[in-house]
Amino acid sequence: MTMPDQIPANSVGVVSSSKLHFRDPLDLDCGVTLQEYDLVYECYGELNAERSNAVLICHALSGDHHAAGYNSVDEAKPGWWDNCIGPGKPIDTNIYFVVSSNNLGGCAGSTGPLSINPSVGTAYGPDFPIVTVRDWVESQSRLADALGVTRWAAVMGGSLGGMQALQWAIDYPDRVAHSIVIAAASKLSTQNIAFNEVARQAIRYDTSFHEGHYLDHDVVPERGLMLARMLGHITYLSDDGLHAKFGRELRDGKLNFGYDVEFQIESYLRHQGQAFVGRFDANSYLLMTKSLDYFDPAAQFNDDLTATLKRCTAQFLVVSFTSDWRFPPTKSRELVRALLDADKDVSYIDVDSEQGHDSFLLEFPAYHDVLHSYFARIAREIDQ
Amino acid sequence: MTMPDQIPANSVGVVSSSKLHFRDPLDLDCGVTLQEYDLVYECYGELNAERSNAVLICHALSGDHHAAGYNSVDEAKPGWWDNCIGPGKPIDTNIYFVVSSNNLGGCAGSTGPLSINPSVGTAYGPDFPIVTVRDWVESQSRLADALGVTRWAAVMGGSLGGMQALQWAIDYPDRVAHSIVIAAASKLSTQNIAFNEVARQAIRYDTSFHEGHYLDHDVVPERGLMLARMLGHITYLSDDGLHAKFGRELRDGKLNFGYDVEFQIESYLRHQGQAFVGRFDANSYLLMTKSLDYFDPAAQFNDDLTATLKRCTAQFLVVSFTSDWRFPPTKSRELVRALLDADKDVSYIDVDSEQGHDSFLLEFPAYHDVLHSYFARIAREIDQ
Repeated sequence: MTMPDQIPANSVGVVSSSKLHFRDPLDLDCGVTLQEYDLVYECYGELNAERSNAVLICHALSGDHHAAGYNSVDEAKPGWWDNCIGPGKPIDTNIYFVVSSNNLGGCAGSTGPLSINPSVGTAYGPDFPIVTVRDWVESQSRLADALGVTRWAAVMGGSLGGMQALQWAIDYPDRVAHSIVIAAASKLSTQNIAFNEVARQAIRYDTSFHEGHYLDHDVVPERGLMLARMLGHITYLSDDGLHAKFGRELRDGKLNFGYDVEFQIESYLRHQGQAFVGRFDANSYLLMTKSLDYFDPAAQFNDDLTATLKRCTAQFLVVSFTSDWRFPPTKSRELVRALLDADKDVSYIDVDSEQGHDSFLLEFPAYHDVLHSYFARIAREIDQ
Repeated sequence: MTMPDQIPANSVGVVSSSKLHFRDPLDLDCGVTLQEYDLVYECYGELNAERSNAVLICHALSGDHHAAGYNSVDEAKPGWWDNCIGPGKPIDTNIYFVVSSNNLGGCAGSTGPLSINPSVGTAYGPDFPIVTVRDWVESQSRLADALGVTRWAAVMGGSLGGMQALQWAIDYPDRVAHSIVIAAASKLSTQNIAFNEVARQAIRYDTSFHEGHYLDHDVVPERGLMLARMLGHITYLSDDGLHAKFGRELRDGKLNFGYDVEFQIESYLRHQGQAFVGRFDANSYLLMTKSLDYFDPAAQFNDDLTATLKRCTAQFLVVSFTSDWRFPPTKSRELVRALLDADKDVSYIDVDSEQGHDSFLLEFPAYHDVLHSYFARIAREIDQ
């Protein structure tokens, strides 16, 4: 691993991903069995001799396995959670062995709609099965086996990643010491499902979608994907945060009485939409929104979240952000309440932030200090 | 006016609209002059001899002039604010002469994108100028002149209609006794503009949009308009309201791992979207969202809302709803604060409601009792 001058000293440096091919069939929640599949992942830090210092990072809707460091010296931006993972950072890679994998069904290297379906020899496209958070946990457990990790010091994630951290604690109580659930919920609200539905319809209504077989037509449903992303971005930020960032500022300083960009917020949304089209696959996006909608671990336990959580042995850290209205603090408190009712060890903080749901990706003291302290506690447990 | 058996006694009964053609050129904010135009409107009740009992109803984004009663005995549903207007209702048509007009630029009869542009002989389509709340007030003032109403006992509206009620009080201080501003704001938030932008892009990205000339191609941008409406409906309802109405209920009682309707909320949104396509014009929708975005009466007065309101002589009733996040109570309070700072007579109530922005259209005691009382007060003033 080289670390050129321009890469900060507290970075994990230049990293590369690995790919593992699994041949154990994976029975998915939807009833389909994946006969074989790849998982792509990155690792930072070193697994200790006791194998007790491994941390699993779970990504959100549009994330991937590249959580920290740089994939090349020319990469402009580091991984998506680089502010959190590295030497001296909250997840200190001098202490922890960090694993970050790309979810099945994604479009960053793990098997998904863009992968070749071995049974037919062409890309899965829309025929890739809808995978669930449980399926992801199951696939990640096999990755853990392959890496020699029998028990995670922590499984951690924000948003959809936080749901995976929770599901891990439920499905594999013996394999999770700490579950860190950030800006998440034990299930989506009706409003959340509604936003996902509009995003899905935006993609599916796009005349370039071709029922998901767009690659056969050498097109992508760009406009639908842009709309989905624009809508997403509104819900990732708070009203106050948007106001502070863009207000009612006009790009040209005056109204033009037309439909080109007038307000700066319009410019921002269009830019975010356009940037997304180049990096994300529409079928993956559809599938990920369904995983979100379906997540509801208590559904298997008579809708009794407390009963669901009774089986967990992990200790929990739950984090919410005051201005997050996509996964509001009330939902985190519901989870905390159920964990307490289930007699679990849980720490909870509602972090003051104006940045909405996106806060979980940002670096600021009120948030990172909590992560620092919590991981210092985990480190002391490992040392004992 | 006939009143068949099935029409309730407290209805204004069967009503018909009127159309007035105006030949006085109207200089619009955008710089364009409308040489002539039609306004369509309905009236309920009788103008008294003193002409002191007239109430103007202003409609919102997708509303029209048909606010009360039935356009025929076969009409399934009465006008959109029928619960509020009629004999014995808050706006008691035994007392008041109620005028409800369709906004210019709309698609229900007043001149708009679907109307013939007299200078070219074909429909305006996308060439219809973007009109503003100020333009609407100006056009409504000419309607008032034509109807012999020199001063409104009240100008009233919800949402975009509330903005018109406010603008009336600013532009025509001598012609408005009471301005009733419900579920509105003195300007849109950044988040509101953002939602409007996504709705506009959904329409404009539709391959059937043809830069607004869709009628020339015998199509309408159905999918874009559906998406816009689906998104709108999410923001008109509260998270709690959606939860109470739909929860996470599944239409078939189980997950199907596909993209057909699964959750009831999906079914509701698709239905609302489809119903809207049949009754609203896409160019009108685009234009109305721009009117919303542009509304900012204080912009003419150095962004000083208090200074803007100083010229008003009306008394104000401001109403917000606790769960309205599209036009939240904080925005109504900003307006109330500015009215107080401007030394105006203002009554304000934040009505407890779970139904979000749509509350302003609903009938429930905590809300209608306020309207009843306030209009009883206006009636006493008229009598004096």
